[in-house]
Amino acid sequence: MERKPQNTQHRYSHAPTDIVTMTDRQGGNQRIDHFGFLEDGTFKQRYLVNNEHWDQKGGPILFYTGNEGDITWFCNNTGFMWDVAEELGAMLVFAEHRYYGESLPFGQDSYSDAKHLNYLTSEQALADFSVLIRELKRTVLGAQKSPVIAIGGSYGGMLSAWLRMKYPNVVVGALAASAPIWQFPDMVPCGDFYKIVTQDFARSGLNCDVNIRRSWKAIDNITATDDGLQWLSGEFSLCSPLKKTDLDGFKAWLQETWVNLAMVDYPYEANFLQPLPRWPIQVVCKHLGFDPSVVSDYQLLGGISEAARVYYNYTGNCPCLNTSSTATGNLGFIGWYYQACTEMVMPLCTDGIQDMFEPQDWNFQAFSDECHSLFGVRPRADWADTVYGGLDIASHSNIIFSNGGLDPWSSGGVTRNISDSVVAIVIPDGAHHLDLRYNNEYDPHTVLSARVLEVKYFKLWITQARKLQIPG
Amino acid sequence: MERKPQNTQHRYSHAPTDIVTMTDRQGGNQRIDHFGFLEDGTFKQRYLVNNEHWDQKGGPILFYTGNEGDITWFCNNTGFMWDVAEELGAMLVFAEHRYYGESLPFGQDSYSDAKHLNYLTSEQALADFSVLIRELKRTVLGAQKSPVIAIGGSYGGMLSAWLRMKYPNVVVGALAASAPIWQFPDMVPCGDFYKIVTQDFARSGLNCDVNIRRSWKAIDNITATDDGLQWLSGEFSLCSPLKKTDLDGFKAWLQETWVNLAMVDYPYEANFLQPLPRWPIQVVCKHLGFDPSVVSDYQLLGGISEAARVYYNYTGNCPCLNTSSTATGNLGFIGWYYQACTEMVMPLCTDGIQDMFEPQDWNFQAFSDECHSLFGVRPRADWADTVYGGLDIASHSNIIFSNGGLDPWSSGGVTRNISDSVVAIVIPDGAHHLDLRYNNEYDPHTVLSARVLEVKYFKLWITQARKLQIPG
Repeated sequence: MERKPQNTQHRYSHAPTDIVTMTDRQGGNQRIDHFGFLEDGTFKQRYLVNNEHWDQKGGPILFYTGNEGDITWFCNNTGFMWDVAEELGAMLVFAEHRYYGESLPFGQDSYSDAKHLNYLTSEQALADFSVLIRELKRTVLGAQKSPVIAIGGSYGGMLSAWLRMKYPNVVVGALAASAPIWQFPDMVPCGDFYKIVTQDFARSGLNCDVNIRRSWKAIDNITATDDGLQWLSGEFSLCSPLKKTDLDGFKAWLQETWVNLAMVDYPYEANFLQPLPRWPIQVVCKHLGFDPSVVSDYQLLGGISEAARVYYNYTGNCPCLNTSSTATGNLGFIGWYYQACTEMVMPLCTDGIQDMFEPQDWNFQAFSDECHSLFGVRPRADWADTVYGGLDIASHSNIIFSNGGLDPWSSGGVTRNISDSVVAIVIPDGAHHLDLRYNNEYDPHTVLSARVLEVKYFKLWITQARKLQIPG
Repeated sequence: MERKPQNTQHRYSHAPTDIVTMTDRQGGNQRIDHFGFLEDGTFKQRYLVNNEHWDQKGGPILFYTGNEGDITWFCNNTGFMWDVAEELGAMLVFAEHRYYGESLPFGQDSYSDAKHLNYLTSEQALADFSVLIRELKRTVLGAQKSPVIAIGGSYGGMLSAWLRMKYPNVVVGALAASAPIWQFPDMVPCGDFYKIVTQDFARSGLNCDVNIRRSWKAIDNITATDDGLQWLSGEFSLCSPLKKTDLDGFKAWLQETWVNLAMVDYPYEANFLQPLPRWPIQVVCKHLGFDPSVVSDYQLLGGISEAARVYYNYTGNCPCLNTSSTATGNLGFIGWYYQACTEMVMPLCTDGIQDMFEPQDWNFQAFSDECHSLFGVRPRADWADTVYGGLDIASHSNIIFSNGGLDPWSSGGVTRNISDSVVAIVIPDGAHHLDLRYNNEYDPHTVLSARVLEVKYFKLWITQARKLQIPG
């Protein structure tokens, strides 16, 4: 999931699509507007299907509820589904979220203005998924009685949980991995997110968080002069030299860098937001171990620049650092920003004490004004709470919320069992939806146990569903 | 609930509002569009509140989910809520459905075209109810932790059930009285509705259904001549004499009359669709007891005309019969027709064998074309199934579906227990949501038992809710 303020984009990692049969389909026509009858246009929703291990006599369907990006990218980063397909005799389906990838309701005009963006909501996306699942069950031979399990990570995980909550007739259960369904106003403290980021750095190397916390002032000190600005631009090998007016943006870019590292602090080499070494924050922190009481501003920022290169130039192929983005790729940014500006209002804040960032309050009005100037719409701060039940989700069933202890998004996750069938799993050594990734020799045992438990629940739901099945 | 093809309108009956304190409020601003952000207008939703018996320390709220008409009319016809308020220490709230009564999103323009009608959907209405309930709990002193129970009859009962299904955080349970949530395509046989109407007449007098079944042909025979047409107009005291081209309309009006009688076949004098005697179908059938093998067409239609007068002129104040409507009032027709033409697609059909009507298939295409010419929209036959779960509602909880054995709408109702907490009550001697009416000395014991059981469930849900309550 991207956070609101900045561009965290994505690109392909390794591609299981290369080695297995994968069908890329433009789905049955979806209504552009499921909730009104004036707009009667339709569009093609893309989805990917793999039947390799499917038991055609009603074997289950694992259905990935696509999030804010090209579905092939999520498909490639959800190895868990590929790993368990054979054991479950499951068909795999990855459904693209409207307005992302190739699933554009108005083609090239989809993002042209507020009128065309009006159908980019989670409710419409959930309705797409329901319609698609029903269509698959009706048309795919052998799938009529297949129990369907929703699986998703991050915003996709929120959608999985919500799909089970709103359409329990369509999916028998949901695995919502690293899904911050409570990261909404008045549900959790806005500062927890950055506290977790800070803890990740604190645990990964002596003085690491302390030195990052000091770096903001050091930037101010050094960039007070033109020489200092020039030095900093050189030290970071920036593609465009810094001007005085760029400083807020430069700091935001650095802050986003540390956040992204916290999200992808995986125990092995991986390429999710960027190609990175194993336990990348540990590698970052090797450059930030100074004794804070003696280090100079120049030394400190030298270390910060080395640390940033771990994230941006692990491959060594990057000639200069570009502060206009924090992750490569061509997906999601504008759409997700629109969603944040409408339904997905997720307050974040920092205080500089419990976290390593410069203090910044959550300012709804400023955010709303920014949304209005960008998109011509204003966010509804309490809509997500109203429509998705907020903290009160006890009456639902068959949902697993898995959370990574290292993942800042666990701040808004469900980390305690709500009932016997709305359960939480915490993976202490896990970053952002580690459990959804392929098995890896470096996986900590906690994620292996989590995956075993997840599959156990899947089997339980499938058994339940077969017992309850309506005849005919 | 009105059926699609004809105008079944309503008017006031007796008014408990005259004898108790009732506050009529224009509710907090509701968004015209809950599901998109382009249309950011709001409107005032009307609701009625009575606090007379409310235990202000968190006593429950009984919340009537208004259906297709002026809310005061439903308020006056839902005496059950008034009867149980004291026992439960409950606040009563009756919320008006958007586009009906005084809750008009665009004022006088609300019905002007498809653009203005676009927000008349059950999903928008459910969102209104959720927003209103949350608003009441936030603003009414003592209501913060009040468990809310949704109650509704007919389409209002469908909304109650759906509110619990879609917003279980907002209401702890629902009483869905005479709510045909399964009267949608491919869920129940389209002919069951008229079969039940026919059975009501068959059980209420010898030869009653047989003579009505014969009457259609008698009408054809007699109206073959101009003299016959004139005779029939006179015999029925029609306000406008029949022309040849009026015959289909005349038959439809009669058919609707029998249907309405089946809906309001109450065991005591009542004024729901019309002022009527107790067990009105028995009174009707006194005029239709002829031996069918010897009666002439003239005699038969004479009896039919007497029977129709029981419905239209019980008060004796009606100088002539008007075939352009079947129930007085100024509510609901166009709005409900629009809803039938969009989401509320309820197939009905007759075969003339198992029912007493002229055979008529369900013709979706013709219906769709009619909708398009009237409103510029086309119905989505399978949307209700997708969005509300169709037959597969077992994963929900705390819903009572009560059904009247005499009520034709029980054809689409849930008449068997689905689980321990999604339960059905059948009231064999009950017509359309008899259980929601005031206690009456002529009530059959089956409706008294039903009400007792309903209150028992209410108390159980309230206890459950208090146990589960989230602190704070």
